[in-house]
Amino acid sequence: MTAGILTIGDEILIGQTIDTNSAVIAKHLNANGVSIKRILSVADTIEGIIEGLESLEDDCDIVLTTGGLGPTKDDITKHAFRKYFDDDLVFKKEYFEKVKKVFEERGFKVTEAHINQFHLPSKAELYQNNMGSAPGMLFEENGTLFFSMPGVPYEMEHLLVERLLPILKERSGDNEVYHRTLMTVGAGETTLANQIEGIVDQLPLDASVAYLPNLGSVRIRFSVSGNQITDSKAELDRLFLQMKEKLEPFAYGEDELPLAKHIGDLLISRHLKLSLAESCTGGHLGHEITKIPGSSAYFEGSVISYSYLQKESILGVKKETLLIYGAVSEETVIEMQKGIIRFTGSDVSISISGIAGPTGGTPDKPVGTIWMACGNKEKYFTKKVMAGKNRLKNMEYAAVHALNLLRQFIYEVY
Amino acid sequence: MTAGILTIGDEILIGQTIDTNSAVIAKHLNANGVSIKRILSVADTIEGIIEGLESLEDDCDIVLTTGGLGPTKDDITKHAFRKYFDDDLVFKKEYFEKVKKVFEERGFKVTEAHINQFHLPSKAELYQNNMGSAPGMLFEENGTLFFSMPGVPYEMEHLLVERLLPILKERSGDNEVYHRTLMTVGAGETTLANQIEGIVDQLPLDASVAYLPNLGSVRIRFSVSGNQITDSKAELDRLFLQMKEKLEPFAYGEDELPLAKHIGDLLISRHLKLSLAESCTGGHLGHEITKIPGSSAYFEGSVISYSYLQKESILGVKKETLLIYGAVSEETVIEMQKGIIRFTGSDVSISISGIAGPTGGTPDKPVGTIWMACGNKEKYFTKKVMAGKNRLKNMEYAAVHALNLLRQFIYEVY
Repeated sequence: MTAGILTIGDEILIGQTIDTNSAVIAKHLNANGVSIKRILSVADTIEGIIEGLESLEDDCDIVLTTGGLGPTKDDITKHAFRKYFDDDLVFKKEYFEKVKKVFEERGFKVTEAHINQFHLPSKAELYQNNMGSAPGMLFEENGTLFFSMPGVPYEMEHLLVERLLPILKERSGDNEVYHRTLMTVGAGETTLANQIEGIVDQLPLDASVAYLPNLGSVRIRFSVSGNQITDSKAELDRLFLQMKEKLEPFAYGEDELPLAKHIGDLLISRHLKLSLAESCTGGHLGHEITKIPGSSAYFEGSVISYSYLQKESILGVKKETLLIYGAVSEETVIEMQKGIIRFTGSDVSISISGIAGPTGGTPDKPVGTIWMACGNKEKYFTKKVMAGKNRLKNMEYAAVHALNLLRQFIYEVY
Repeated sequence: MTAGILTIGDEILIGQTIDTNSAVIAKHLNANGVSIKRILSVADTIEGIIEGLESLEDDCDIVLTTGGLGPTKDDITKHAFRKYFDDDLVFKKEYFEKVKKVFEERGFKVTEAHINQFHLPSKAELYQNNMGSAPGMLFEENGTLFFSMPGVPYEMEHLLVERLLPILKERSGDNEVYHRTLMTVGAGETTLANQIEGIVDQLPLDASVAYLPNLGSVRIRFSVSGNQITDSKAELDRLFLQMKEKLEPFAYGEDELPLAKHIGDLLISRHLKLSLAESCTGGHLGHEITKIPGSSAYFEGSVISYSYLQKESILGVKKETLLIYGAVSEETVIEMQKGIIRFTGSDVSISISGIAGPTGGTPDKPVGTIWMACGNKEKYFTKKVMAGKNRLKNMEYAAVHALNLLRQFIYEVY
């Protein structure tokens, strides 16, 4: 089964909104054996939407659209569908009454705009949206399914997973898509490719490989797909293990495992508690760690020290250290690393101090200079990273390196 | 001038990578008067790429592609271009020598894969990439420009801004695109739309309006475009001010101003220093604040207290408060808010404690229950938010509400 995704909205075409919906849809469909042929984004115009529907209907079994279903005036998707299917708008009274009831229970007022929202194409089969007022609309014409969802991400995902996927599961055939992904950190694309070249050459003919680099880390994705892929899958599984072993120092896990989740697993298995002393990353490292469900089992907490005063008073960094070496120095991050352990009583800790930019650099310490330490009460590793000029990227880059440093420390010491 | 964007990569079509490149390209082009007709994502296949190029060439003056230029085997964009333009691959020795020199200076080894990378279509004019090895490629055929860039986001943006935009500026005509965006927080799309309905009706005929909701906030974008838009622009500017006034309690700024930047401006103008005591948001609020350049001028630091122990010992929350009311309670966030001020000496502070989920809820306090306080030494505001089941969304939602609460506190008290 093949699908096409059409995301509708001027905000996407002017770059004001990043289209995250397509990735969410693609992930869910793929996991259910539906492969995506194309993703297309068009403006909020009836012609644009109609052209988009036409181009996708051509070679897709199902076309999914997001956006343009809200109660305000810019929402014109329903008019495009009406025209595309040569249909009329009718007042969907039954659905409206349901929504009205929910609104009244919550003390919201139903407005003219809401009533207008339920004038919808007569051919649309409506699917209830528990997260908002706009329902999902399903059309079936000339053997193609069309499913229209709102653009608000959590409403879209709710309709996709709870309403559409059960329908697709019923209808899908035997086509299968099989992915294995190797998660690596600390080496570039070419280094990795060279190391596993000999093994990649042995992969089955229908397999494909993709290297997906991101700040400091690379995912390597292997895929096979088709109707009869049992053998290819087994062969891929066998070689995948070999490649993982070959890339040992860099490969830390599989299948979209976040590095922070891997660190969490390491900490749990060794009964260690972690704390952080963040300066230039300003909370980003803590966020990376705590966005993993269950992180409260091993994360003790952290101090974000944005001033000299706090580095001294809270973390116990010596005044002389700050005066002689500065806040961005190996000496300071070591004292921060020890200080946060004293402060929180955790077993291991990470500290980071750097110049995130875009200003604040000096000739010795240009923007992007970042020092980090990680260790326990006795031992520690330190690392200096020279990043770029982009503040947010520097923070993200520093967090990846810091997590990787902790990984190495745990491997070595525990 | 019109443009089409083609992003190439299986990783996009299986949802493994969110296509952020398109938004970055769209933003830059739009700001330079180039409007985007369509954004299309296709798989790493020669036919897919060629079909994509064809469909965009039709009605776009320029077609931009990203992805598929790296040194590894999955990179086939150059073969698609070669075929599309009926061209041959030639060894671009001059560019290769340059890259080799840079590699050698940095102590990297040039491999077979790298040499292979510089066999490129003969018709391609190469543009130097200072951030990586793959150059930008420019083709001009049948009056259409084609510009191919790598998929790595910072390499792409570098080539776009430093190499392509100067060329486009030289060639672009008089077409103009004009946007004004109103940033709001604390009200839904329908509430906002109702309040400004009367003014929106007076907008010039060529103006369009879009509501762009996100967790707890809505951007409202007004646009006019064309060759002669001086009058429409003036009229939009006039009505924009009226709408901003009308939406006073919710509208905090314009033109993509992040809420955290606005808070920073408020703090600076009133000479206030801020500190945070985060529990369930785990650093996310600190990250939101510190990713704003210059935030060190007003951000004192924070404590992330993930355990009872730390709430007591560091923030001075009373043992009885935790025992009687629990960590997620109004009483606890008030003591945290006061505690972090004592601890850091800041003027104002925010505290947050909640159940981020996906587990850990109780019948009284289900997942998504989040308490927050903000204030100074004497006064405070508190707020309880009932969010959803998604851990990451709950953190983001809580941060928006907390910033908005601080905004209200500053307006009222200072």
